[in-house]
Amino acid sequence: MRLYLAGPDVFLPDPLARAAALKAICAHYGFIGVSPLDPLAGEPEDWTMMPEALRIARRNEAHIASCDALVANLTPFRGPSADAGTVFELGFMRALGRPVYGWSNDPTPFAHRTRTFAGVTGGHDADGMQIEDFGLADNLMIEGAIHASGGTLTQAASAHAERWTDLAAFAACIAAIRAR
Amino acid sequence: MRLYLAGPDVFLPDPLARAAALKAICAHYGFIGVSPLDPLAGEPEDWTMMPEALRIARRNEAHIASCDALVANLTPFRGPSADAGTVFELGFMRALGRPVYGWSNDPTPFAHRTRTFAGVTGGHDADGMQIEDFGLADNLMIEGAIHASGGTLTQAASAHAERWTDLAAFAACIAAIRAR
Repeated sequence: MRLYLAGPDVFLPDPLARAAALKAICAHYGFIGVSPLDPLAGEPEDWTMMPEALRIARRNEAHIASCDALVANLTPFRGPSADAGTVFELGFMRALGRPVYGWSNDPTPFAHRTRTFAGVTGGHDADGMQIEDFGLADNLMIEGAIHASGGTLTQAASAHAERWTDLAAFAACIAAIRAR
Repeated sequence: MRLYLAGPDVFLPDPLARAAALKAICAHYGFIGVSPLDPLAGEPEDWTMMPEALRIARRNEAHIASCDALVANLTPFRGPSADAGTVFELGFMRALGRPVYGWSNDPTPFAHRTRTFAGVTGGHDADGMQIEDFGLADNLMIEGAIHASGGTLTQAASAHAERWTDLAAFAACIAAIRAR
């Protein structure tokens, strides 16, 4: 079974080492981990004409479509929510009807994180826009998709300084997929 | 043609009035605008047993699947990127193979917004994580999907205080769809 490894891990200082670490855990549980950084077998030749960013986007879409499930690093990234690219990919896989799994190194509820970010305590931010507060881990489309697809969400309370390196929640997430 | 109207507009103080305003512009150009707040015809009865947040997520997925294209409000929301729910929905529609369009009231490049958010001037944030810098409007999966699907991205430089109310970029986006 092929698992697409979505996450802002690609922005880490040594993204290839990180991808190797994630793949090793997948292999330990009998899965093939597919990284956004992997070359794409049979990549169309005319993609070489595209700007690099657009080519990466096409390649990632193709990688996702080649996988049986998606595992997303939902640790909040530069704001109260998960990384935008990761969330896009989760929505993409959800529409393909395959299971989506999430893990996060920050178990603080989304509404709490949003209020802290916005510097408010009530139901609205300084622009008068509502704080989404359903007791979930992130925007409801994310947890809704995980639930509807039959996936799971694994959270760990990592130290803040270790939230981009700690792999305990990821390993627990992969173990949970194995156990199903 | 039915257009799904994705965006954090649902968090505005009067989200139904906002949805009506967006729909009126769609109607002016001969389109049916579909809001996340619309009731879903034929909603399965057993959804009433679900927690409200998960039911909203399912309903939005069904709305998207019922539409011919998606129009996303990509104005940065609580961080350098667009609203997480909006980005999820954009990825969902992209995987269905239909056109996705975007509009934003902030034309500042994504890399510039990210550096400002992170308080850095170089290529990495305080966690050592890379600043994505391809000269795009947001994470490359977003603009990649718009480009690959044949959609367009419309940007306007609204005053900061009017970025959640100004509909000029939205109207220009809908007009561009009409012109195709």
